[in-house]
Amino acid sequence: MRALRLHGPEDLRLDDVPEPELRPGTVKIKVEWCGICGSDLHLYQAGPAAFGLDAPHPITGEGAPVIMGHEFAGRITEVGAGVTGLAVGDAVCVEPELYDDTCAYCRRGDYNLCLQSGFVGINGWGGGLSEYAVLPRRMVHRLPDGIGTDVGALVEPLAVAWHAVRRAELPPGATALVVGAGPIGLGVLSALGATGARLVAVSEPSTARRELAARLGADTVLDPTRDDVPARVRDLMDGLGADVAFDASGLQVTLDTALGSLRKRGTAVNLAVWEQPAQIAPTQLMLTETSLTSTIGYSGADFPAVIAALRRGVLDAAPFITTRIPLERAIQDGYEALLGAGREEQVKVLVHP
Amino acid sequence: MRALRLHGPEDLRLDDVPEPELRPGTVKIKVEWCGICGSDLHLYQAGPAAFGLDAPHPITGEGAPVIMGHEFAGRITEVGAGVTGLAVGDAVCVEPELYDDTCAYCRRGDYNLCLQSGFVGINGWGGGLSEYAVLPRRMVHRLPDGIGTDVGALVEPLAVAWHAVRRAELPPGATALVVGAGPIGLGVLSALGATGARLVAVSEPSTARRELAARLGADTVLDPTRDDVPARVRDLMDGLGADVAFDASGLQVTLDTALGSLRKRGTAVNLAVWEQPAQIAPTQLMLTETSLTSTIGYSGADFPAVIAALRRGVLDAAPFITTRIPLERAIQDGYEALLGAGREEQVKVLVHP
Ligand SMILES: [Zn+2]
Ligand SMILES: [Zn+2]
Repeated sequence: MRALRLHGPEDLRLDDVPEPELRPGTVKIKVEWCGICGSDLHLYQAGPAAFGLDAPHPITGEGAPVIMGHEFAGRITEVGAGVTGLAVGDAVCVEPELYDDTCAYCRRGDYNLCLQSGFVGINGWGGGLSEYAVLPRRMVHRLPDGIGTDVGALVEPLAVAWHAVRRAELPPGATALVVGAGPIGLGVLSALGATGARLVAVSEPSTARRELAARLGADTVLDPTRDDVPARVRDLMDGLGADVAFDASGLQVTLDTALGSLRKRGTAVNLAVWEQPAQIAPTQLMLTETSLTSTIGYSGADFPAVIAALRRGVLDAAPFITTRIPLERAIQDGYEALLGAGREEQVKVLVHP
Repeated sequence: MRALRLHGPEDLRLDDVPEPELRPGTVKIKVEWCGICGSDLHLYQAGPAAFGLDAPHPITGEGAPVIMGHEFAGRITEVGAGVTGLAVGDAVCVEPELYDDTCAYCRRGDYNLCLQSGFVGINGWGGGLSEYAVLPRRMVHRLPDGIGTDVGALVEPLAVAWHAVRRAELPPGATALVVGAGPIGLGVLSALGATGARLVAVSEPSTARRELAARLGADTVLDPTRDDVPARVRDLMDGLGADVAFDASGLQVTLDTALGSLRKRGTAVNLAVWEQPAQIAPTQLMLTETSLTSTIGYSGADFPAVIAALRRGVLDAAPFITTRIPLERAIQDGYEALLGAGREEQVKVLVHP
């Protein structure tokens, strides 16, 4: 079958690889849609060795070249022995986190923190940028009627956002600021709307993304190149500031904006990968009992909760999809386009293998 | 009456001031013991203007020179009209936070975050370094039989530590690291012991303070000048690290130690005043879902909870008292001694006005 594999920095190749074989406890999925995300772009640019993929992963035993794509959905074509609750023809999405079940974090259910963590689509066991994947039952979630596999491919990034909102432990009727309206920031905005936030502001310099944020339900969209975001947020939110501010950008200025827009005893949540250290003002944080927390991946009920919210219509993922391309155009119109000049017009590029 | 007032930087004077008069809703307290804390020393060195005390406080209407001392206890000598639950002769301690009752934080009970916050003993309404204080009923807590006013003067710093432990939202049977064994660090150690922590390590360079930490119940005392504290903590605490780490020192190296000693999804709590910005590594915090939170003062049930723990004997405050001096020696043997060469031998200096 055809599969897009990363061989080195900016060296993705459409390879012909053996089709994976069904084993007991697994299902075989014909991939229909797979998204490309920011961490894929990081990996593409830095190359597999920079991510430790030159050594075999402890769970999969696989190293580079690896099949890419961890945001994917498709239809089941075969069901392995012992698998219950799934049938041939079911539309499903994949929860791609690898974990070992036995470490102290996994035993508490926090498998996103597994000591041997990894991802299908980065660390082996195939990926979404290929025609088929064979995966253990526990990684596969059935999509309800009415949820297409295109939206199904968005469940993974939405689960990242959902997990972040859950980690923020918002009070009922919370006020929130989202800094950065890329796919993750827009996902956080959507998850806030689907979990009862009272008032959500979004700060984003790109006009196209601000418009999308408004369409996805932001109460206020702010342009950090023109607006004094902390002052505007304070005015909007009871004269105090936001209960929680999510930084989906990962720059000193966006972290400062997030922290500076909080009410006292507010929480800033970082979802971004930073290349550099950050500076904070501990005494200012202390005087205001401010918290800064961090979030990665998803665990527990995050995938089922996102799927339920999509089914109920309180989460609308379709506006995230800005481009659909076939697998053979994934490098040029996917990876390269998302790193190029028009990237801020894009939210989610879906690839059809 | 005699009162120690701060007139300027390092300009404390034993002044003769009018004795405060009883008003409805207040009680008059003959102060028996008053502690000196780190923030008093900051204020002493920086002077009242640096703390905004040249302008009148919105609640008290008072500015410099102000009577110092916010950690104090004594006996009631007069009870104002309308006061219930307190009688002449009662031993009491004072919860000195000033707040206005009406702001959004106070209305939620978070009066330590009051928009007009201040402290008796810093911002007016007298202080503990004087013979008498007249204060509203709500600031006065009765001490149970068997708890002397010397220990009563320690309830305030213990409430700071108690509040910090409460803010950390420890899981049951938590593991913890305390970085710095001054009065606040030792208070946190004690509060952890009194609230069910399973395992507590303390990191402290001073031998005298390490010995006191061991005496106050630390399971392990570490010397950061010799021990690899994060590695030792990880070994001691399930091979993972601490659920929570309290930084009571406020240096880059102590913050790094606190953050570096955590298990994944652990929380570092800063209780220290910093003079400088701090540096953090957001991606490392993100990969481990680490939180950094901050805490100041006390609110709600913190004072009553500390008093109950003292009554039950699960909190032992007597070892904190290292020196007792009369008011006329408070500058030389109190403030100056706590800033001098032997300061690390001291924990709490109590002044008897
Ligand atoms: Zn694990
Ligand atoms: Zn208030």
